Amino acid sequence: MTELTTASGTSWLSREEMDSARERLPILYVDAVPVRVDDHGTVSAIGLLLRVGGDGQIKRSLVSGRVLYHERVRAALLRHLEKDLGPLALPRVPPAPQPFTIAEYFPTPGVTPFHDPRQHAVSLAYVVPVEGDCAPQQDALELTWFSPLEVREPTVLAELANGQSHLLLQALAHLGV
Amino acid sequence: MTELTTASGTSWLSREEMDSARERLPILYVDAVPVRVDDHGTVSAIGLLLRVGGDGQIKRSLVSGRVLYHERVRAALLRHLEKDLGPLALPRVPPAPQPFTIAEYFPTPGVTPFHDPRQHAVSLAYVVPVEGDCAPQQDALELTWFSPLEVREPTVLAELANGQSHLLLQALAHLGV
Amino acid sequence: MTELTTASGTSWLSREEMDSARERLPILYVDAVPVRVDDHGTVSAIGLLLRVGGDGQIKRSLVSGRVLYHERVRAALLRHLEKDLGPLALPRVPPAPQPFTIAEYFPTPGVTPFHDPRQHAVSLAYVVPVEGDCAPQQDALELTWFSPLEVREPTVLAELANGQSHLLLQALAHLGV
Amino acid sequence: MTELTTASGTSWLSREEMDSARERLPILYVDAVPVRVDDHGTVSAIGLLLRVGGDGQIKRSLVSGRVLYHERVRAALLRHLEKDLGPLALPRVPPAPQPFTIAEYFPTPGVTPFHDPRQHAVSLAYVVPVEGDCAPQQDALELTWFSPLEVREPTVLAELANGQSHLLLQALAHLGV
Repeated sequence: MTELTTASGTSWLSREEMDSARERLPILYVDAVPVRVDDHGTVSAIGLLLRVGGDGQIKRSLVSGRVLYHERVRAALLRHLEKDLGPLALPRVPPAPQPFTIAEYFPTPGVTPFHDPRQHAVSLAYVVPVEGDCAPQQDALELTWFSPLEVREPTVLAELANGQSHLLLQALAHLGV
Repeated sequence: MTELTTASGTSWLSREEMDSARERLPILYVDAVPVRVDDHGTVSAIGLLLRVGGDGQIKRSLVSGRVLYHERVRAALLRHLEKDLGPLALPRVPPAPQPFTIAEYFPTPGVTPFHDPRQHAVSLAYVVPVEGDCAPQQDALELTWFSPLEVREPTVLAELANGQSHLLLQALAHLGV
Repeated sequence: MTELTTASGTSWLSREEMDSARERLPILYVDAVPVRVDDHGTVSAIGLLLRVGGDGQIKRSLVSGRVLYHERVRAALLRHLEKDLGPLALPRVPPAPQPFTIAEYFPTPGVTPFHDPRQHAVSLAYVVPVEGDCAPQQDALELTWFSPLEVREPTVLAELANGQSHLLLQALAHLGV
Repeated sequence: MTELTTASGTSWLSREEMDSARERLPILYVDAVPVRVDDHGTVSAIGLLLRVGGDGQIKRSLVSGRVLYHERVRAALLRHLEKDLGPLALPRVPPAPQPFTIAEYFPTPGVTPFHDPRQHAVSLAYVVPVEGDCAPQQDALELTWFSPLEVREPTVLAELANGQSHLLLQALAHLGV
């Protein structure tokens, strides 16, 4: 996961406190796979963000971020979708809270397919149809829509960091595309 | 399930052939629980149809119907939603094919909570957010929206036939409301 | 799917009647992905059957078969698991009826990733841990256990017929392995 | 949820640090609904623990507890099952990581059906078949098996604290019983 805690006051911990917690507790995240669907509800495109990571490298990523204290999971999903896709994206968060899978990001590589050098994060993963206009916000440079076929290409998958290519493939399998 | 095979040419079997198949094979159905969701994706209302059953009794029901030969499950869902809710309902069929549960309707009462005197039907059940205007069609007299609280009232549940009250409660549990 | 309707009296239709139904109605199937799990419930191996298909070709397949009239889905799963893996396999059928996905096998290739030249079949797919000794039965020549890594090899996937390689990959994604 | 963090060294935070984190971050939990299944995988009984809560009151509860830093969700499930049901319980943790739902326990009552005065906890909920002998451990006084019918009785449901009766009913709905 790319750096998603912002200085915008959405976090209720100072950076020092958050860094300390990150060394002690699994941190709860949400991951959203933004999709375009046609009239039949069939997925026609998958959206990936282009970001500059903490190390200056340009990487693709899913919409991803922390759940805050006293925040509903659904509200966290909407907050991160709006933060990354803009206020006119019209995301259709699924009405049921069951995620299609969970992703366990470990600070140690190799424990799971997911890796986050900063922390142990456990993410609830959802597919979210997006109906409006998306405009990348904040640290996201671009949002690119790929067809289900294009997004599986090794060159695209290789641009996803932290094992999110694995989560993307899990989402595609869940969608049956 | 109320009588859902129509004389409109959507069925590819004569009534006699269909009656014969119904005595020999489990018939594949879809059940849809139509819901209204707010901006956060939280369910605010559940829609139930009011129908006149084959026996002349007035009953409530979910949107329900058969999957036809060479028809995708997704297409069957949309066809039955349009048939019952009208062409302007704008149903948002979930992008993934995993149903939240299956309902096994047996011709013999008591085998499962679901009962269909006409046949052994196995139904794939989905929750479907509906965004547009609903106008009951064909044999549906009315579509009524209930709040999650109202729809659980014993008087409402008692109006659902064939064990669909059980399926409705399963949907509410899945939705976490 | 390989031919799974047997002459053993488990089918309630004559072959002619079944052939006729297959041209008229979607037929309800179950697909099971047999797995070995360790003490932690982590999948260590996936089992594939080796069969001689109707065309004389040797192919690998999942455990798969039809749901009969008046048969519970759970009972159909157990019947096909016992038929293919033998009476000592000790399958642990999941307690909840929600399949991890559905597979729509069309007689026309290309409509979905799944294809069955004989019929339109819709299959409910489950992952089933198997704890006992497996001995292939009837038309199954062999059961082979593959590690999650081995089973993804293109040579293994290519031996699965009717698009079941797609279903296997969906199962692996669902399992997170 | 009853107090589940023990002084046994399984926690990597001092009580003061944990109390501080609990005021700042959602804490990741797992909830397990222990079930007995018959040969067909049908649920025959649901297990509830009897505990003395922090306030001295005797309450029933599900198996529930925190996920630790650098602990897999699967390992946390097994640890809490063993802690509460004893080392011979032989739990069959599901092979897939997808929970059947999530439960959001808020420190403020009424935000969700779930309430935990100590913290904001988000729990991943699983149904876990248990095949061995259960012996309540530590602060659990007793484990009682209820039939699916008995466990729904208002007197039983009323003995569950923190909204876990709601989660139990969600599990029963998911199981279709």
